[in-house]
Amino acid sequence: MLSSVVIGSGNLAHHLVQAMLNANIDLKGIWARDTDKAFEMGQLFRVPVFNGLNQIPQETDLVLLAISDNAVEQVALNIQTHGIVAHCSGILPIQTLGDKRHCGVFWPVQTFSKNQKIDFKKVPVVVQATDEEDQRILEVFADLIAAQAIICKESQRQMLHLAAVFVNNFSNHLFALIKDLLQSNELPFDVLKPLIQETAHKIIEMDPALAQTGPAKRGDTISLNIHRNLLKDDAQLLKLYNILTESIQNKS
Amino acid sequence: MLSSVVIGSGNLAHHLVQAMLNANIDLKGIWARDTDKAFEMGQLFRVPVFNGLNQIPQETDLVLLAISDNAVEQVALNIQTHGIVAHCSGILPIQTLGDKRHCGVFWPVQTFSKNQKIDFKKVPVVVQATDEEDQRILEVFADLIAAQAIICKESQRQMLHLAAVFVNNFSNHLFALIKDLLQSNELPFDVLKPLIQETAHKIIEMDPALAQTGPAKRGDTISLNIHRNLLKDDAQLLKLYNILTESIQNKS
Repeated sequence: MLSSVVIGSGNLAHHLVQAMLNANIDLKGIWARDTDKAFEMGQLFRVPVFNGLNQIPQETDLVLLAISDNAVEQVALNIQTHGIVAHCSGILPIQTLGDKRHCGVFWPVQTFSKNQKIDFKKVPVVVQATDEEDQRILEVFADLIAAQAIICKESQRQMLHLAAVFVNNFSNHLFALIKDLLQSNELPFDVLKPLIQETAHKIIEMDPALAQTGPAKRGDTISLNIHRNLLKDDAQLLKLYNILTESIQNKS
Repeated sequence: MLSSVVIGSGNLAHHLVQAMLNANIDLKGIWARDTDKAFEMGQLFRVPVFNGLNQIPQETDLVLLAISDNAVEQVALNIQTHGIVAHCSGILPIQTLGDKRHCGVFWPVQTFSKNQKIDFKKVPVVVQATDEEDQRILEVFADLIAAQAIICKESQRQMLHLAAVFVNNFSNHLFALIKDLLQSNELPFDVLKPLIQETAHKIIEMDPALAQTGPAKRGDTISLNIHRNLLKDDAQLLKLYNILTESIQNKS
């Protein structure tokens, strides 16, 4: 039976602990800098809470750092274990973990929020390790709790992280900008929700290049001009509109 | 019982005919410029196919033009009916339909593709008419076949169309660009699909401004620099990256 420890008390830590318990992994315990949150989590999941990083059992197979990027280096420095210490960041170099013998990356490619349930069995996990045996163990963990393991080199993982920023952060930002625009025109953002769902749904089976529609793709200058006119008092949105339109036309 | 005629043989026409039949609307028949496609559709749905626009029964309540924007004016010119003639465009002025007594707009805010099933009962429909009674009839049609009627002035409808371009066309374009980027780095686009689904799903219940995460939002300059370095040989993507990052930072 594989054993693990989860460090952290944020959204990802919660999801990971739940997923470990679902997969019958021997979760030895948890630790978080915020003691109150750690004990809250311990009660919620009925798992032991360590008083300090030095209490982590030496023989734990995997110590997973589900903490913010800028805390990884310091926390890793204080962990002594014979097992693998892995961070959950898409972007941090593996070396951030220090000169440990067994280091790894275990990055779930998903966005986690407090009140959004995520089925971890549908989440792909990028794994990376310097040692082949370590990589295999991380793969087994990914197979047990997640959808699949994606084995990446460091530069590929960082490229995937960049890609995730485009499809998640940038799309979401467009939604936020448009919600503001509609509100100032007394229009409900709700009207667009089915369209947003379908846009995301479509590309499950369809190449996004083939799913591309709209005035930019069609070269429909009448629509483009009406849109630009509607945005004439909003320099920021107009700039985005023009650059994205141009980018679609360059790709066509 | 309300009666209708659907003009067109494309994706939207197919979806509308199906939705009309599901709602027990008296679909008098269909017509399309492409005769072969019209007869194919007639067979598929077992509805009459008119040989010409002059065969449309005068007393039809609604003649719906589910055709491309640039065909609307010409087709509308050749329709004689006592009922409402409505186009299905988000952007075309209502006047494109000519000086008819009963004109309207019936724009389903959704993206339709040939092989994607859409539940029309979940699609919001923007309706617009010059006459109040016509507007009520269009509302009834929307209530019968779709999720809800959104009553808009012309400028509001065009603003909604612009908004749809942002959340649908532009998001999809980001997906297409990223698929290319990943392919050239030997990474599968599939890894991002659960993230894309979740990004769209999240905003059903969460304000997109509150759902915003990522390095731009956090002011995480280390990640931003790694990303920019990864894009240093791709001027187009780097430009998009910088502008969208800046836009997130301006909004924060």
